[in-house]
Amino acid sequence: MSKLHAAVIGAGYWGPNLARNFRSSPDWDLVAVCDLDEARARKVVGERSTVEVVTSLDELLARDDIDAVAVATPAATHARIVTAALEAGKHVVVEKPIADGGVAGRAMVALAADRGLTLMVDHTFCYTAPVLKIRELIADGSLGDIQFIDSVRINLGLVQPDVDVFWDLAPHDLSILDFILPGGLVPTAVGAQGADPLKVGQSCVGYLTLPLADGAMAHVHVNWLSPTKIRQFVVGGSKKTLVWDDLAPQQRLTVFDRGVDLRETSADRAAAQISYRLGDAWAPALKESEALGVMVGEFAAAIREGRPPRTDGHAGLRVLDVLEAARSSLADGGRLTPIHSMEAVK
Amino acid sequence: MSKLHAAVIGAGYWGPNLARNFRSSPDWDLVAVCDLDEARARKVVGERSTVEVVTSLDELLARDDIDAVAVATPAATHARIVTAALEAGKHVVVEKPIADGGVAGRAMVALAADRGLTLMVDHTFCYTAPVLKIRELIADGSLGDIQFIDSVRINLGLVQPDVDVFWDLAPHDLSILDFILPGGLVPTAVGAQGADPLKVGQSCVGYLTLPLADGAMAHVHVNWLSPTKIRQFVVGGSKKTLVWDDLAPQQRLTVFDRGVDLRETSADRAAAQISYRLGDAWAPALKESEALGVMVGEFAAAIREGRPPRTDGHAGLRVLDVLEAARSSLADGGRLTPIHSMEAVK
Amino acid sequence: MSKLHAAVIGAGYWGPNLARNFRSSPDWDLVAVCDLDEARARKVVGERSTVEVVTSLDELLARDDIDAVAVATPAATHARIVTAALEAGKHVVVEKPIADGGVAGRAMVALAADRGLTLMVDHTFCYTAPVLKIRELIADGSLGDIQFIDSVRINLGLVQPDVDVFWDLAPHDLSILDFILPGGLVPTAVGAQGADPLKVGQSCVGYLTLPLADGAMAHVHVNWLSPTKIRQFVVGGSKKTLVWDDLAPQQRLTVFDRGVDLRETSADRAAAQISYRLGDAWAPALKESEALGVMVGEFAAAIREGRPPRTDGHAGLRVLDVLEAARSSLADGGRLTPIHSMEAVK
Amino acid sequence: MSKLHAAVIGAGYWGPNLARNFRSSPDWDLVAVCDLDEARARKVVGERSTVEVVTSLDELLARDDIDAVAVATPAATHARIVTAALEAGKHVVVEKPIADGGVAGRAMVALAADRGLTLMVDHTFCYTAPVLKIRELIADGSLGDIQFIDSVRINLGLVQPDVDVFWDLAPHDLSILDFILPGGLVPTAVGAQGADPLKVGQSCVGYLTLPLADGAMAHVHVNWLSPTKIRQFVVGGSKKTLVWDDLAPQQRLTVFDRGVDLRETSADRAAAQISYRLGDAWAPALKESEALGVMVGEFAAAIREGRPPRTDGHAGLRVLDVLEAARSSLADGGRLTPIHSMEAVK
Repeated sequence: MSKLHAAVIGAGYWGPNLARNFRSSPDWDLVAVCDLDEARARKVVGERSTVEVVTSLDELLARDDIDAVAVATPAATHARIVTAALEAGKHVVVEKPIADGGVAGRAMVALAADRGLTLMVDHTFCYTAPVLKIRELIADGSLGDIQFIDSVRINLGLVQPDVDVFWDLAPHDLSILDFILPGGLVPTAVGAQGADPLKVGQSCVGYLTLPLADGAMAHVHVNWLSPTKIRQFVVGGSKKTLVWDDLAPQQRLTVFDRGVDLRETSADRAAAQISYRLGDAWAPALKESEALGVMVGEFAAAIREGRPPRTDGHAGLRVLDVLEAARSSLADGGRLTPIHSMEAVK
Repeated sequence: MSKLHAAVIGAGYWGPNLARNFRSSPDWDLVAVCDLDEARARKVVGERSTVEVVTSLDELLARDDIDAVAVATPAATHARIVTAALEAGKHVVVEKPIADGGVAGRAMVALAADRGLTLMVDHTFCYTAPVLKIRELIADGSLGDIQFIDSVRINLGLVQPDVDVFWDLAPHDLSILDFILPGGLVPTAVGAQGADPLKVGQSCVGYLTLPLADGAMAHVHVNWLSPTKIRQFVVGGSKKTLVWDDLAPQQRLTVFDRGVDLRETSADRAAAQISYRLGDAWAPALKESEALGVMVGEFAAAIREGRPPRTDGHAGLRVLDVLEAARSSLADGGRLTPIHSMEAVK
Repeated sequence: MSKLHAAVIGAGYWGPNLARNFRSSPDWDLVAVCDLDEARARKVVGERSTVEVVTSLDELLARDDIDAVAVATPAATHARIVTAALEAGKHVVVEKPIADGGVAGRAMVALAADRGLTLMVDHTFCYTAPVLKIRELIADGSLGDIQFIDSVRINLGLVQPDVDVFWDLAPHDLSILDFILPGGLVPTAVGAQGADPLKVGQSCVGYLTLPLADGAMAHVHVNWLSPTKIRQFVVGGSKKTLVWDDLAPQQRLTVFDRGVDLRETSADRAAAQISYRLGDAWAPALKESEALGVMVGEFAAAIREGRPPRTDGHAGLRVLDVLEAARSSLADGGRLTPIHSMEAVK
Repeated sequence: MSKLHAAVIGAGYWGPNLARNFRSSPDWDLVAVCDLDEARARKVVGERSTVEVVTSLDELLARDDIDAVAVATPAATHARIVTAALEAGKHVVVEKPIADGGVAGRAMVALAADRGLTLMVDHTFCYTAPVLKIRELIADGSLGDIQFIDSVRINLGLVQPDVDVFWDLAPHDLSILDFILPGGLVPTAVGAQGADPLKVGQSCVGYLTLPLADGAMAHVHVNWLSPTKIRQFVVGGSKKTLVWDDLAPQQRLTVFDRGVDLRETSADRAAAQISYRLGDAWAPALKESEALGVMVGEFAAAIREGRPPRTDGHAGLRVLDVLEAARSSLADGGRLTPIHSMEAVK
């Protein structure tokens, strides 16, 4: 099978990782790296390389030896660049969040559908071994009904003038939730609390609460100010509970056969008998591989098979809807704010 | 110095720990254990022991060879038992929360003041080596201004019919906050979100948000449904950040000389320059000793010196005020709810 | 069933733990604590207690209301005290090592057999949940053939004038090996290397190598000088490998379904094909209970049933034989030194 | 400054890492990768690259546009390839161990000196942030006198037909010891114990004991059969003790202000008083950078400045001397075997 031809647009923080993975992929030939800053693009390409450096987006998109582009520019520029690329007939994978607002995001998704092109969002974590395993264990009923999900993602982060900690970090957690929940991320409401102790005009510490079906709840803690890095994700189920500690290299995922059983002995729920199980723990073996490598492979497969990719534009919009509702909740003292999503689940 | 004479009331979950510590204290002579269930009280006393077993509260309080009582009964009974003890002229230490409502609590505190008796709340964690060290590091300015505090206390817990997870577990976190914050726990408001996935009629998973002075925020996560135990407490300061992991026996407390610096370069706050420090970490040596032993020592010292104990009735009321406001916030979709505390800080 | 009557001899470091467990055991009534130092013994007994304090060993042994004694005195005194107790018709449990030399040890075991009395060695670790589980997993073939065992027990320890680190700490490791190996601890030889960097005249850092059956090897690292405590025990088997980390309170025991497979493809062993399995890990639930409580229960059961206890005098002698051979190896530059044990395995 | 021109010889396990670091180094231009297997070499070079692929060693060495070569072939081939490269006037960095025998190794070192060429050994760990910091803390006296060093390096490893676990893994530990000890690795003797439970004809589990100056001792545990990876290195000093846990990404290095103090109260050493300090722990910030990148930078600097590199041929020979003496000790039941090293310390 001949390779597809790709270009990476944006040679900043994430672009080099995309370029590296396109280069080493059996599915792709990386033709060019595009950035307004030629030196920065050249650094990504490296020496003794025949990958081209392009500084003009128009020039890049006008070429007909490029099938697809990967867009790794600031969120505020996504709408313009992705629209131009789709109009030039290129398949697109774009960094998260898909756009900086729902209207722009929906227009991009509609355009891609209209042109019959693949529009994918780089929800990288959805291509990691732990997340794939969590999705599998929920889907096959191993964990039982979801009772709660708690995600902590805290670390020293780059305080940014125009993006708060929710828009910077929470897309990771929200895209994971969207991917693992059987019906996708379609909470009815979201509550958000934020703090700005540095007084930079943006939340640097944030908490999201997402009521899920049947009384369950998801909670997300994102924080730029913590010197200690914590990435912990707990899924409490009626049968088993799962803990993903992304910083425990030798045992990322643990499934506990422990939990709370409720035996209804009468019509009165509150009088039900509660019992506790304290069983074994189990750490499934994970086949580690670089997530971005899996992602670019999925991008190629979706293009070739003419099917939506695993993390398509609609997934990107579901994440965006939560971020926008969180902004409203934040302005309303953290009260649960309804989300009116119209995004079908893949 | 002759010993003070004590009795423990309540031989359930916590009573045996109190009894053991009164028995081994150089300040105390444990005279009796009192419980309606004689066998249960006898079990606490043990064999080949001359500690008495008493089943009548009135009989116990009528004795004049007892200086003080420790009350370890359900919260709903505190008002009645503590009031009777104070009226009988006994000094009292009572389990947390001090009462199941603010009115009852305030009456108890007033009665003790009126009679000139010591009323202490057993905020046990305030007598542990890590909490004492945290208080010291905040007080002496080592951490700088508080920016955020995040407390996680999750574990398989006993789902109870009449007490939710906030009233069961959060008093620990709130009493610690009250103890370490220079001005005590006097937030202006509290937001609470809870989930009841087991449908027992009570929150089993709960989150509290407490705006503090100067844009800082405290957050508490309490959870009865987690099979994996986490007890982590992070204090982010403008100079240093501290992490207390109570389950890391060999390094409970770590102070990171890392953080975010803000250099204002213009009138525009958002354009301020942010820089990052990545310095050493430091784990202060802690002198471990059983917290309850320290607590009963403080109880004796407060009685002898006629001064308020470290965790006095007012501290108990400040915790109670937050719990009551949280109940209101929960009913209002998690919106920040004002707290009108009248409790002076010790 | 009526209780058996016990006395504890020696109120130093370990005696208080024994006393506490005899007191709380349903099988035992603790009658007395015996020590030359009356104040020390009285402190173990505590206040408001009717347990007696005795300062004369002869007087204690002469009483006929005592069925058994627990001896927690220095190793050099074991032979004299245990012999006196057996001659007085008392059953005995003695701290490890059973004696400070093989001749004395063998005489004690012979005397007990002669009198029909129970002689048990307090190999405490053999009564912990992890060790019981390890023994079970080896016995039922879950781990396959043993390939290597590596035990590390390092910590700041009390440098002692007359006992080196081997005699102080290694009895723990050796007694565990004796308990879990299907044939008991009967290595053909032992190699020992030691260091005395403080120049106290005794090894403070020590390493033991024990060739086991079929090319397997056990290794023990004991160290008094390490400020960081490590207690890790690895059992490598042909089917699975087990890691016991005694300081990981939430997951002490992990069984890895990983390892090395050897497929012989020809007569030439060295040309055999090696392959690697990388499967799941599994952490069996452990029923935690205080080991000393289980130990005093086994002591009572052995006496009542007239059978050898789980860690009998012969187990004590097998440990002693290794310690004595290690002393010879140390003097011979660490060369493997034969052990001629005559101890039958229980 | 113009770049130096390099080629990598050997495109197996380690070659790709060397190639990647030469490519991204500001000091080097990677001209070619050489391997008998053209496809393997081409895979290292990658697509859209102008780095050349060469299959003939003679052809490679005959080129005059190459200043230096990095040799990443099996140890048995080092002598032949390195000698040819030096005779062709190329500077050489060679993988560890420098050779498979002392005679060959010494000839290589002599030849390089004779020709005025740089001969460096790729002791990669000596270029990592933790090892550089350990060396610094020993050199500046922070740890005091060395009392013991214990290194554990266990993991599932590739059982090899012609190299045992000592020759495969111990060069890492020995090169680290050589680098951090003020006088280099010049023990007077070595003891070795090994086990071959798979009966492949080679030790798969190995232990080395190295008496150091003043009663100190170093010990190394290398193991191919452990499914759990442990890389722990403890340096016990008279002032402080250091623990390097290479798998604790957030706190690799910890320095404990704890230890054992010896106060001599009389001429009798054994009667000296021992006391214990239990102070703070301290985790120095480490500037992380890829060790191989630092190594290729040092290689360039040594060539340009005409000085010996940090890990020169003599360091390689000191490691080799220990490996050869260990082989003798293994054959003598583990007895300490003298080492007659003639290698001066840099």
